[in-house]
Amino acid sequence: MIPPKIIILGAGYAGLTAALTFQKKLRTKEAEVTLVNKNEYHYFTTRLHEPAAGTFPHDKTRVDIKRLINRKKVQLIQDNVVEIRTSDRVVVLENHTLAYDYLIVGLGAEPETFGIPGLMEYTFNRWNINGVRQLREYIEYQFATYKNDPKRTELLTFVVGGAGLTGIEFVSELADRVPKLCKEYDVDTSLVRLITVESAPVALPGFDPGLRNYATSALEAKGVEFILGTPIKACNKHGVVLASGKEIRAGTVVWAAGVRGNSIIEKSGFTTTRGRVPVDGYLRAPGHENVFIIGDCALFTDQRTKRPYPPTAQIAVQMGKLLAENIVVTIRGTKHKRKPFKPVIYGTVASLGREDAIGQFGKKRVTGYPAVIIKKAVDLRYLFAIGGIRLVLKKGRF
Amino acid sequence: MIPPKIIILGAGYAGLTAALTFQKKLRTKEAEVTLVNKNEYHYFTTRLHEPAAGTFPHDKTRVDIKRLINRKKVQLIQDNVVEIRTSDRVVVLENHTLAYDYLIVGLGAEPETFGIPGLMEYTFNRWNINGVRQLREYIEYQFATYKNDPKRTELLTFVVGGAGLTGIEFVSELADRVPKLCKEYDVDTSLVRLITVESAPVALPGFDPGLRNYATSALEAKGVEFILGTPIKACNKHGVVLASGKEIRAGTVVWAAGVRGNSIIEKSGFTTTRGRVPVDGYLRAPGHENVFIIGDCALFTDQRTKRPYPPTAQIAVQMGKLLAENIVVTIRGTKHKRKPFKPVIYGTVASLGREDAIGQFGKKRVTGYPAVIIKKAVDLRYLFAIGGIRLVLKKGRF
Repeated sequence: MIPPKIIILGAGYAGLTAALTFQKKLRTKEAEVTLVNKNEYHYFTTRLHEPAAGTFPHDKTRVDIKRLINRKKVQLIQDNVVEIRTSDRVVVLENHTLAYDYLIVGLGAEPETFGIPGLMEYTFNRWNINGVRQLREYIEYQFATYKNDPKRTELLTFVVGGAGLTGIEFVSELADRVPKLCKEYDVDTSLVRLITVESAPVALPGFDPGLRNYATSALEAKGVEFILGTPIKACNKHGVVLASGKEIRAGTVVWAAGVRGNSIIEKSGFTTTRGRVPVDGYLRAPGHENVFIIGDCALFTDQRTKRPYPPTAQIAVQMGKLLAENIVVTIRGTKHKRKPFKPVIYGTVASLGREDAIGQFGKKRVTGYPAVIIKKAVDLRYLFAIGGIRLVLKKGRF
Repeated sequence: MIPPKIIILGAGYAGLTAALTFQKKLRTKEAEVTLVNKNEYHYFTTRLHEPAAGTFPHDKTRVDIKRLINRKKVQLIQDNVVEIRTSDRVVVLENHTLAYDYLIVGLGAEPETFGIPGLMEYTFNRWNINGVRQLREYIEYQFATYKNDPKRTELLTFVVGGAGLTGIEFVSELADRVPKLCKEYDVDTSLVRLITVESAPVALPGFDPGLRNYATSALEAKGVEFILGTPIKACNKHGVVLASGKEIRAGTVVWAAGVRGNSIIEKSGFTTTRGRVPVDGYLRAPGHENVFIIGDCALFTDQRTKRPYPPTAQIAVQMGKLLAENIVVTIRGTKHKRKPFKPVIYGTVASLGREDAIGQFGKKRVTGYPAVIIKKAVDLRYLFAIGGIRLVLKKGRF
């Protein structure tokens, strides 16, 4: 018996969880699992707003995959995916071509530009380690440059496009850091502007009105300005142009207003909606029995409300775990034991900087310090799940 | 009796030393001393290569002038000098106009461009706190950006124009920091290039051949490349063009190949050579009995060799001290007690990074650890001279 080949593309929340679940459940020689990732590390997307603003070292928001994976059970390949060829049952990487029996695609998201001209060139929009590290350095460089050219106060204007979770969490961290940056670079704090621009009429649309108001008031108290109900029409080297025609001159524009699925999936011929593949209850791509899409590339629709679930880490982890369990029972010839995917939404927490947060758990609402603690607990729980207490101690923010 | 007004322009090595000497020697109401400086701090020019490369915090290379000055004895004005009007005996500042009886000009140096096109726009050339802080952030930003655009290896090429003291000390610190930067930004160290370009046929021309060879070998071992006897013909956004016609693509070009006097002096009508005023034995500007030039703006010629002394901190401090003492005796009506300026050159030390240095003291030569200790001792001695043991403990690098 040749063991079936399982290929996992991407070691994000979904792919890594799948790999770790296989590692735990599969017996020796039951299958050959290969995890492909472009970096040698897994990073914590939900915490990238911290290194992006420079309030927490980026190295604490990633972990070497080799430290999590038992390489006797899961093979690791560091490479870039070029194409998925379902007709040949192979994945083409830059330096390898891999055949599969089961393919799990967890390639993650890309920024959604909504066709706004100049957005890719003139904004920071890559929410990964390389992207946020560059943003952090750029922010510091703006402060340092301003002191050499004190007429250019626009260097101290920071526009954040998007008042969803990422945008709000980032602008909160940046607001926390501004006093420290001003001290480090001898800049008068009153010259710094943080402006959040959002096309929707409200910030944090996933939260109820009470919590939304709590969040915007807290951020306004920290000096954040809000321009709501106003899409960005264009980005250029001077800043942004709003739909209203108003221009905001800004040294830094950060794009945090939405993601789409990975373009490799579209290029490989899958049916997609904004880069996301509509998957069935078993997380299969339409028309494929052995190709599964998980994480931000999967469009999973709630059959009751007919609305798709948003791309979150919470759902990605649940998808990875369930899918790996389903594949294990399939390999063992007990396909009837498979379970359809039923996401459980425990709740959502939004950090508002180091000392404030909001949380919504069903009908329960939490603000301030208790919400901060819950947010930290969620992060630590994930660290524990993937790497045990050792990882909690090494990467946790306490 | 109205006490005479003494104005000191610039709180660099020369001006600050003059102010501190007045503070010590003058009795109450003997004179009214005003120190004008554009920043509220004095900085240690001889150590700026450290914060420039990011190996030492910039805040440790400056000190708040208010902490050094007894404001009952010396008035402080933070302002920019616009013009010196000797005919009216006034100094025009941006926000004040000050009359003087004695004027001491210690406005420091500006970069000498030698007419090289593109040099001011495309290089980092400001050796002051604002300039080196910006350079440090820019260097980090290059590493961070490279990871988002790994084909642009030129982002990791750093050209230093000038193999004099500043250029060598800076490139040494940067060479020390490269391994740490590579670790922080996940960059392969073999991709980083540090290139020193010098128009003279040798590096560190002030040192004897044995020490020069020691220094270049030590730096080559750290990965620094030397292109000697080759002037830079032009700088542009891609890097530098050498006199040989060869182009070096470089993300960062640092100019450390020479300084000239302050342009305010030229604008105010003084006779100058490359911005420096040829002063007499009493450090007077030609044709002025009561205007004195000290520090990098003064061109003081060794009457024996007929060669001008180079602009160094060592000489600036000696000028400031002697001049203040001479003015004190003049005010007291004992002009015959004045002493002509006779610089004493104790020796020169060049740092080659954290753990190496060279020093030349007359015929004595020192290399390696002993030279490092001497360099540190020179720095600490200056800290002690201006601010006592408290400043040594606060700002010293041990």
